[in-house]
Amino acid sequence: MPHIPNPSGLPGVAGLMAYRRTTGDALRAFTQALMRGDSSLTAAERELVATYVSSRNGCRFCTRSHAAVARRLGSAIVDDVIANRLEGAPPKTKALLAVAEHVRTSVAPVPLGLVEEARRSGVDDVAIHDAVLVAAAFCMFNRYVEGLDATTPEDGGAYETMADRLAGEGYARHPVSG
Amino acid sequence: MPHIPNPSGLPGVAGLMAYRRTTGDALRAFTQALMRGDSSLTAAERELVATYVSSRNGCRFCTRSHAAVARRLGSAIVDDVIANRLEGAPPKTKALLAVAEHVRTSVAPVPLGLVEEARRSGVDDVAIHDAVLVAAAFCMFNRYVEGLDATTPEDGGAYETMADRLAGEGYARHPVSG
Repeated sequence: MPHIPNPSGLPGVAGLMAYRRTTGDALRAFTQALMRGDSSLTAAERELVATYVSSRNGCRFCTRSHAAVARRLGSAIVDDVIANRLEGAPPKTKALLAVAEHVRTSVAPVPLGLVEEARRSGVDDVAIHDAVLVAAAFCMFNRYVEGLDATTPEDGGAYETMADRLAGEGYARHPVSG
Repeated sequence: MPHIPNPSGLPGVAGLMAYRRTTGDALRAFTQALMRGDSSLTAAERELVATYVSSRNGCRFCTRSHAAVARRLGSAIVDDVIANRLEGAPPKTKALLAVAEHVRTSVAPVPLGLVEEARRSGVDDVAIHDAVLVAAAFCMFNRYVEGLDATTPEDGGAYETMADRLAGEGYARHPVSG
């Protein structure tokens, strides 16, 4: 049961953002900029980083919702990313997820070796920045959702409904109801 | 040496936000809403949570900058918070920092005992929400700053200059130069 009221009935982070519009509106705008703004990472690559970090952090709501969005955006390796089976992943994806895993587990500079590996896979400065910030942001979102024990649907259909909206129109708008 | 260019010459997170305005502008607006928006926590209480989480996470830039802001906003226990010497702190502060420490170290629901202790100290639902989100947000900012090895001034004066601005006008505006 969530630690705070959820009058909107919306699941996960959407319910938290509806409860506290002061921070919720700003968080939605930040998520839109982070996940859909101009970047040298595709939206699908950013969703994979979000899925990986959320999965390794054990946040079921964020894992299932971003996995569903990544699939809509065309990623064929979502299940492998959740299972941490990365042998067959493209070198760029592998390098980005290695950077993300460092950020998830440590508050410390990403080792130069991981940055160089990412550059060799075709990643530029903007992509390194964005991969680090997506990984760091999901260390926030995962803690926010789990810390407040936000509503986490068991039914897979709820995540597909969310993914319909998020893959199409993005994160900026508050949904009107649960 | 930072992993990405820092043409603005600004230290810490300010340099990262100036390098990537797409996310930087949204992050500033979020920080302003989180740290200065309407809340049942005072701005000083939120700065103390930020200082505590950053200190325990080992992020020197965030610790020193938010400690300087908390002092400007009138907190007399900043050094004790950094040293994790909380015996003499007000019950409300102790309860909020216990919640924050759980959020920092776990991706899991804050234990009901900590929530009840916070309520007994006079904390309402909004304050519990805001304490969890401030703690979670600094798990993001600390990873962002340290992960990209952002410029961290050794000179205490740099933090006082930042605190002059942040305690006065808040977080919304990008500073114009380093």
